Amino acid sequence: MPIEPTRRDFIRAGGTGLLAAAAIPLAPPDKQRPDLQVLKPGGKKVGWAIVGLGQLALAQVMPAFREAKLSRPVALVSGHPEKARAVADTYGVDPKNIYNYDNFDSIKDNPDVDVVYIILPNSMHAEYTMRSAKAGKHVLCEKPMCANVAEAQHMIDACKAAGKKLMVAYRLRFEPYNKAAIQFCREKLCGPIVQMEMSNMQNTRPPNIRLSKALAGGPLGDIGVYCINACRYLSGEEPVEVTAMLYQPADDPRFAEVPRDYVFTMRFPSGVHAHCGVTFGSNSSRRYRVHCTDGYIDMEHPFGYSGQELRSFKQRQETKHNLETVNHFAAEMDHLSDCVLNDKDPLTPGEEGLADMRVIAAIEEAARTGQRTKI
Amino acid sequence: MPIEPTRRDFIRAGGTGLLAAAAIPLAPPDKQRPDLQVLKPGGKKVGWAIVGLGQLALAQVMPAFREAKLSRPVALVSGHPEKARAVADTYGVDPKNIYNYDNFDSIKDNPDVDVVYIILPNSMHAEYTMRSAKAGKHVLCEKPMCANVAEAQHMIDACKAAGKKLMVAYRLRFEPYNKAAIQFCREKLCGPIVQMEMSNMQNTRPPNIRLSKALAGGPLGDIGVYCINACRYLSGEEPVEVTAMLYQPADDPRFAEVPRDYVFTMRFPSGVHAHCGVTFGSNSSRRYRVHCTDGYIDMEHPFGYSGQELRSFKQRQETKHNLETVNHFAAEMDHLSDCVLNDKDPLTPGEEGLADMRVIAAIEEAARTGQRTKI
Amino acid sequence: MPIEPTRRDFIRAGGTGLLAAAAIPLAPPDKQRPDLQVLKPGGKKVGWAIVGLGQLALAQVMPAFREAKLSRPVALVSGHPEKARAVADTYGVDPKNIYNYDNFDSIKDNPDVDVVYIILPNSMHAEYTMRSAKAGKHVLCEKPMCANVAEAQHMIDACKAAGKKLMVAYRLRFEPYNKAAIQFCREKLCGPIVQMEMSNMQNTRPPNIRLSKALAGGPLGDIGVYCINACRYLSGEEPVEVTAMLYQPADDPRFAEVPRDYVFTMRFPSGVHAHCGVTFGSNSSRRYRVHCTDGYIDMEHPFGYSGQELRSFKQRQETKHNLETVNHFAAEMDHLSDCVLNDKDPLTPGEEGLADMRVIAAIEEAARTGQRTKI
Amino acid sequence: MPIEPTRRDFIRAGGTGLLAAAAIPLAPPDKQRPDLQVLKPGGKKVGWAIVGLGQLALAQVMPAFREAKLSRPVALVSGHPEKARAVADTYGVDPKNIYNYDNFDSIKDNPDVDVVYIILPNSMHAEYTMRSAKAGKHVLCEKPMCANVAEAQHMIDACKAAGKKLMVAYRLRFEPYNKAAIQFCREKLCGPIVQMEMSNMQNTRPPNIRLSKALAGGPLGDIGVYCINACRYLSGEEPVEVTAMLYQPADDPRFAEVPRDYVFTMRFPSGVHAHCGVTFGSNSSRRYRVHCTDGYIDMEHPFGYSGQELRSFKQRQETKHNLETVNHFAAEMDHLSDCVLNDKDPLTPGEEGLADMRVIAAIEEAARTGQRTKI
Repeated sequence: MPIEPTRRDFIRAGGTGLLAAAAIPLAPPDKQRPDLQVLKPGGKKVGWAIVGLGQLALAQVMPAFREAKLSRPVALVSGHPEKARAVADTYGVDPKNIYNYDNFDSIKDNPDVDVVYIILPNSMHAEYTMRSAKAGKHVLCEKPMCANVAEAQHMIDACKAAGKKLMVAYRLRFEPYNKAAIQFCREKLCGPIVQMEMSNMQNTRPPNIRLSKALAGGPLGDIGVYCINACRYLSGEEPVEVTAMLYQPADDPRFAEVPRDYVFTMRFPSGVHAHCGVTFGSNSSRRYRVHCTDGYIDMEHPFGYSGQELRSFKQRQETKHNLETVNHFAAEMDHLSDCVLNDKDPLTPGEEGLADMRVIAAIEEAARTGQRTKI
Repeated sequence: MPIEPTRRDFIRAGGTGLLAAAAIPLAPPDKQRPDLQVLKPGGKKVGWAIVGLGQLALAQVMPAFREAKLSRPVALVSGHPEKARAVADTYGVDPKNIYNYDNFDSIKDNPDVDVVYIILPNSMHAEYTMRSAKAGKHVLCEKPMCANVAEAQHMIDACKAAGKKLMVAYRLRFEPYNKAAIQFCREKLCGPIVQMEMSNMQNTRPPNIRLSKALAGGPLGDIGVYCINACRYLSGEEPVEVTAMLYQPADDPRFAEVPRDYVFTMRFPSGVHAHCGVTFGSNSSRRYRVHCTDGYIDMEHPFGYSGQELRSFKQRQETKHNLETVNHFAAEMDHLSDCVLNDKDPLTPGEEGLADMRVIAAIEEAARTGQRTKI
Repeated sequence: MPIEPTRRDFIRAGGTGLLAAAAIPLAPPDKQRPDLQVLKPGGKKVGWAIVGLGQLALAQVMPAFREAKLSRPVALVSGHPEKARAVADTYGVDPKNIYNYDNFDSIKDNPDVDVVYIILPNSMHAEYTMRSAKAGKHVLCEKPMCANVAEAQHMIDACKAAGKKLMVAYRLRFEPYNKAAIQFCREKLCGPIVQMEMSNMQNTRPPNIRLSKALAGGPLGDIGVYCINACRYLSGEEPVEVTAMLYQPADDPRFAEVPRDYVFTMRFPSGVHAHCGVTFGSNSSRRYRVHCTDGYIDMEHPFGYSGQELRSFKQRQETKHNLETVNHFAAEMDHLSDCVLNDKDPLTPGEEGLADMRVIAAIEEAARTGQRTKI
Repeated sequence: MPIEPTRRDFIRAGGTGLLAAAAIPLAPPDKQRPDLQVLKPGGKKVGWAIVGLGQLALAQVMPAFREAKLSRPVALVSGHPEKARAVADTYGVDPKNIYNYDNFDSIKDNPDVDVVYIILPNSMHAEYTMRSAKAGKHVLCEKPMCANVAEAQHMIDACKAAGKKLMVAYRLRFEPYNKAAIQFCREKLCGPIVQMEMSNMQNTRPPNIRLSKALAGGPLGDIGVYCINACRYLSGEEPVEVTAMLYQPADDPRFAEVPRDYVFTMRFPSGVHAHCGVTFGSNSSRRYRVHCTDGYIDMEHPFGYSGQELRSFKQRQETKHNLETVNHFAAEMDHLSDCVLNDKDPLTPGEEGLADMRVIAAIEEAARTGQRTKI
């Protein structure tokens, strides 16, 4: 059971001196994981089918299996048979386990496949999640979970009806730096949160499905969801109200279908506010700062596949935290495999994605109407 | 003429050497200032009256005169005669030039006084500006300029009617790091601005006039004005629309009269948005980041009396800019003295303060109504 | 031909934009490698035999083959057959190509093996290099090359006699940050070098062959060689004279056989000096700074498998250089494979190791005699 | 008694957790200084005579009096009467208390002068210290203390004979960052010291007395003394043996009389070594790192009048320590004034300078002879 994020506690400094706890004592990676790496009968790892062999699948997910302890790729689903065969060859997937979008449903007859990992354009997440559930498979669905709230609910319902687990691929919940930030907030190491600020900026160049409305693209769902999710996992609260503005430049053909920018603010029940900005039109920049009564944490590159930098400030003292890193995709896949093997609930179930979809919907409405909008 | 910020250009890389432009070429302090330090007849510096001997006056403004080239303190206005005498003694002000709030208007008869620097609670700025103008004196007024838009207009009108200069004390316009940031934006060194994010956080503890509604306190005018002004001077545009939310905790007696937090977003005509947050309830933290198409700049501590840290990022390259610093107060006072001596317009006239007051008013309305509000 | 370090030039700023040369223009990874990836007949990669399956081989070298373009593991040499079989299984090495130290010489009959990579205790480098050459194989030998100058010469002679290439595994010559530092010095981007300072510190805990005199351990050869080599590759000069002191604590049983510390200085013909320190007895710390007439570069973690941080300082400007990283071992192995395929001379031949051995010998003598010692 | 460096203890973190003390708890500035600011009869501050009105006196020492609590300037000694009158005017020194080098000895008749601060070329330190002592005055002498060991001893003897205090102006002993570093070492916050490395680099351009042999210039005494002194105050030990090399370029007329570079190593009784480099020929760079068994501290700009940056590293945790700063010169002058007022021994007496002179002499000999040299 390799992933047990709740056990990685921040250790509290105990001294009585003024600055005894001046630096935030972030825990080292949990070295003492339980040994009971229960595998499938015959000692096999959980079998995964990868649906969609785009950039993310090829550059991140497939290589991540090399570092997975509980998960192995056993099937591929793609509309490009040649590409699929090459990938199968590289990663030792049996070529008979290559599917296309026409014969996908026959995956139900393949006992090697335990979990389906959906890495398709956002507009297809709902359909393939429901077909996977119907095929009797557990599902890991990339984020954003789907195109709207209704779809999210259908996906949850379908998996529940099929008795299958549904997890949304919020890999940062399994990433040491973001986990440390969460613990910092939960343990109130610098007092309660006062305010959060966050941004996720990139330059998206065509052709890119992120620029297609039909494929459920646009910066809010695609990269804004990182901010929304992070504000929720850092605060541990659900936002209740939002304001928003967007910008869709008339003179940039990239943004014929989707806005370039969103800026939005969220109000949380405790009185915490977050203000956020995302764009598809600037140099890459990703960061957040969480302001607490007695200090703050600052994360650079919180959302990338690597490169997280975490600093904490308490009074005038600044500490840079160097943590051991993990492969985000291996960690999240192994988490779901562990849930499957030991019948546990995923840390980021469908309901987690649904909550983000609700916020996205409210931000869209606020941006459209100019009104502060309740969630 | 020591201060001429528009002349401090970024040096364009011209050399042929590899390192000719080894970093974003922020200008060194202007070494070649014209020699014509025109002073008053008799070679005297411009005479200043300081109104209000609070913390800012004592800890910052009075010591700054030691570094001023064109300005000297010649009168003090205070309700505490003993304190005023001690200050006069320390800084060589003639004790006969000590005024109180009752006899203030007689300052009109004092030819040594050229400029009145108003460092009073915000609610008193308008009154003393107008009385100073009436007394035939130029005015430097601390920010925020006053309590509302109407007052700002009255102040401008009064000074115009008296034929006197009115400047608002936006010292950061004379500070090398913020000036470098402005030039970075104006020269589009990393392309046009896409989005801005900014925050100004502090922990305000009573007793403090900032916590008094009657004294025109509250975080929006007091520290939010830094964000508003910075967004305006960085973008060079006037915002046209805002959204906002505020938080006034019911259970914290400090905030019986004024909100603790504001988060707000501003839309600029070019499509640039800014999202900002301010609080009186957290650990100190001040920063901004300006996202451009090809890079960004990041400023830590932009608003302090010192300690500015400026980094620029272009592609993957990060440069930390180390500039020579100046005393902000000496620089802004000398700027107005120079305007007085040479009959020039101040860089930050009353209209500059009025523009901020308009934004503040719109943010207040947006926070109250929940509506996106035009300015 | 993927590796051609001498071609990775600093890109000279050519653009007309202000930021064309926005920072010391360190080259990005060479994107335009020639396409002629000449492989062996049949399109096969060069075949490597790994001799010694210790920590370095298992944790670094074997996984690096996954990222190699021209190199593949085809044989293993180990005294532990079970371990060898497990490694062979993991990396797809044919079990019949597992050798031990008794039958090693029969590797001459294995046409799949082109290169032997020697990853044994330092005391065994010379013997196995010579046996490999005799077996008709090219050799990559870990550093330090061997135990003394005489051995180094024998190794060179043996490979020359056999008409085989000998390369010493100075992986940092293929690492982007160190390559950038070299170019910085060669191109005199901040003027000529004046002085260098360097340290390589770690805490070596028993049992460890580094603490054994018989196995040619000790901090000078093991980690001091990094400093010596770096001073040579940064300056491009051969040192002519050294001073040195060492420390071997009487009360620490770890250092019964080898010293804990060396501090030494080297004089180069141009007048440049370097002062260096190494230890087996402190917390990890690795760095160098190269002082030039008009600026300097500072490298943190120059010697690690990753984590290099390079900053340059010119006047008051500080730039942090973010370069794309490579797998050091894949890069060095592919370099030798390329040399084999295209009959080129390695960048770090045996003579490079011999030069370091001469400096090591002089430092040992200087430390022993207390005399400044010529090389 | 404003200065009491031994009281600024590092607070030890007490927790039992692994990382409870992961950051080094450096003490905040001592807020609770004893109130007994004993002044001279009549409540007067200790009177200082400044000997030599060069750059250091004008730019640093005279302005520092404004921040001194126990010290005031009462006399000036200069060969330039006009300059002296201007300085006297600026700082309120009575013009009758201006001396020149001919009538200096008559200062013995001036009861206002308690202490003489000697800020002359190094070659004149000994003479004026002895004349001051003879005149019945306490002495603060700039560093390096003098030209050689014999002179240092004479200075000590002369002051002792006169019953006057002699202090050498090692201002860094009163500077918060260096004091924190000392405490870090003394308290063994990361275990005992293993090794130290240090450099002090600058570009000295003529005309400059530092380039004159007759005026006792050269980089070893002028800037090397910072390294020597720092190694001594950090380790708390006296070095016993040194090696050294120097470089005096034949083709650079600046270095016709003095070497450009020194690199040297020092051995301390405990087994600690330090390796250091200084130059008059490179871009400014000043730093040290102290390696301990369990971590290290890194100081950038340790020797400047401001700008110290202190980081500590323990395991993988990096902490940047932000301390309140002081005016170094005010602090050191007030320290001696306190010693005078309360008849205490200075923290950096003549013997402290003598110890450095001994090391300097040994380094000179080692550089000349090529032999490891005992002190």
